[in-house]
Amino acid sequence: MTQMQPATAAPAAALPTFDDVRAAARRLEGLAVRTPILESPALNERAGGRVLLKAEVLQRTGSFKFRGAYNRISQIPEAERAGGVVAYSSGNHAQGVAAAAALLGLPAVIVMPSDAPAIKVANTRGYGAEVVFYDRATEAREKIGGAIAAERGATLVPPYDDPMVIAGQGTCGLEVFEQASERGLALDAMLVCCGGGGLTAGCALALEALSPATKVHTVEPEGYDDTRISLEAGRPLPHGPAAPSICDALLSPQPGDLTFAVNRARVSAGLSVSDAEVREAMRFAFRNLKLVVEPGGAVCLAAVLAGKIDTAGRVIALTLSGGNVDAELFRAVLAEEG
Amino acid sequence: MTQMQPATAAPAAALPTFDDVRAAARRLEGLAVRTPILESPALNERAGGRVLLKAEVLQRTGSFKFRGAYNRISQIPEAERAGGVVAYSSGNHAQGVAAAAALLGLPAVIVMPSDAPAIKVANTRGYGAEVVFYDRATEAREKIGGAIAAERGATLVPPYDDPMVIAGQGTCGLEVFEQASERGLALDAMLVCCGGGGLTAGCALALEALSPATKVHTVEPEGYDDTRISLEAGRPLPHGPAAPSICDALLSPQPGDLTFAVNRARVSAGLSVSDAEVREAMRFAFRNLKLVVEPGGAVCLAAVLAGKIDTAGRVIALTLSGGNVDAELFRAVLAEEG
Repeated sequence: MTQMQPATAAPAAALPTFDDVRAAARRLEGLAVRTPILESPALNERAGGRVLLKAEVLQRTGSFKFRGAYNRISQIPEAERAGGVVAYSSGNHAQGVAAAAALLGLPAVIVMPSDAPAIKVANTRGYGAEVVFYDRATEAREKIGGAIAAERGATLVPPYDDPMVIAGQGTCGLEVFEQASERGLALDAMLVCCGGGGLTAGCALALEALSPATKVHTVEPEGYDDTRISLEAGRPLPHGPAAPSICDALLSPQPGDLTFAVNRARVSAGLSVSDAEVREAMRFAFRNLKLVVEPGGAVCLAAVLAGKIDTAGRVIALTLSGGNVDAELFRAVLAEEG
Repeated sequence: MTQMQPATAAPAAALPTFDDVRAAARRLEGLAVRTPILESPALNERAGGRVLLKAEVLQRTGSFKFRGAYNRISQIPEAERAGGVVAYSSGNHAQGVAAAAALLGLPAVIVMPSDAPAIKVANTRGYGAEVVFYDRATEAREKIGGAIAAERGATLVPPYDDPMVIAGQGTCGLEVFEQASERGLALDAMLVCCGGGGLTAGCALALEALSPATKVHTVEPEGYDDTRISLEAGRPLPHGPAAPSICDALLSPQPGDLTFAVNRARVSAGLSVSDAEVREAMRFAFRNLKLVVEPGGAVCLAAVLAGKIDTAGRVIALTLSGGNVDAELFRAVLAEEG
């Protein structure tokens, strides 16, 4: 009888550390945007506290994903670079990988769902990547990505379940801590937009080291709150059947093994928000912040506006994690303005 | 026969200086947002140079106007504060004055055209100011503002033709210089969105002192290019008859006396852009910058995108001076996406 590898939990040695986050910050210096922390007097007043908005919509490629993608791809050994990289993504990771690969001179193939927002497809191609479509309902993107990797000798760049991707995303949390400190503020909590949990894991590693009293919360779309469910159960679980959501960036079926191994002991509680709350947050960002925020990037702001977290007298940071939204959807959201 | 005061040219003594800009920067510290300089790889590539975008849409009240308003109002002597302030404005100065007055505890009355964008009216009231409407076609806002000032003992805060307003707006140019220097860049030129010329004058004073080789250019809506015409004529002249423009913030009839006295020797040449070019720039900002930019705030970006200034191999800064646009207009602009 052959010994089976355990299918779940990754070995502890593979987990990223805060040192990896700091190393990523050095690699990204001058390449990733040190995105600003914004504040809105109207939002602070409504919250009765300080809400620090980490504007990752202003990041290169319009989302935080560039951080992890560049950190990962920049560490591909010279001998393996000719095969290029392959990634699967609904769009933001696609753009991050495409832009990072272009900067580093590697060819990139991106496997995208056929219903991905057109702006994400166009931008991914704009960075010079080849796009291969799959049907979200009938095909497994991991399988297609794996086949391309094998065929071309390409390195697979996973969207979240990779130590170097997590460490790269963690530079967002590192900056949030530094920028809050520059304002003389200690963070009571940080809310992080959560799909597979990579941004959360990276930020949690940074805050654990720098500001252990800061509570970290994930925010997910209602019905796609697998991280919330998994945190409560203490093990990675898929979400149940869910209605469609406009939060295309956050529809991962369950937490990653690595991300959950990091998050389970470091995230205080998971929050979730409805599409209607997300749409209201997008309008708030338009009116009050002058920022274009995509649905998945607006879930944390939605959680604050909908009162899902206690903000009174507290200092709360949150990610506005991406702004790659099609004009058609953005117009529809604005049209509902009351 | 009584001696007449000359009706034109203000006395040279009244002109603001770079020292006034530096004093304004000290007053605004911690109150005005040090708005970020953004860059877009796509824009830099298209320009064949470096385009530094000063994102004043992220300023308190959604435009640069807070800088000048606060600088002016904070210097009203204690004995005159009870009467409050009065201002006339199509909207951005209104919000700047209302927010600055609220911060300083002064009552504010704002005289606004009855066709001002709803978002600007709502925000002005949101800062606690009283709004008085006038008809742009049949009434003179200066007269209404003057009457209110006389009646209530209020201090008039002019939108641009005031040394302290100009000095406050100049902090934008001071920051642009500092932020370019932090990147190791010397500015070849700076493009400034121009209505009455206050932002231009303040920025020109800062750049003359800090970076005299930097060329300063105004950008105005086609037909409302009174500063361009005046620069060419060497004296302040009104623009001719003009079709309506969506650039509501930049429809001033002619340069101010003070602003023109500053600008005439310091501005290299005036540029102008069509509404269609402005709309394309607003879409570019949506797609590539993830910023909401109002028409008048997008004229400089429009000038670069439309090739109205040589950008090849050069470092060009420009203002994205405001983001207070109604959802309805923004939707209409996005709907034209090609």
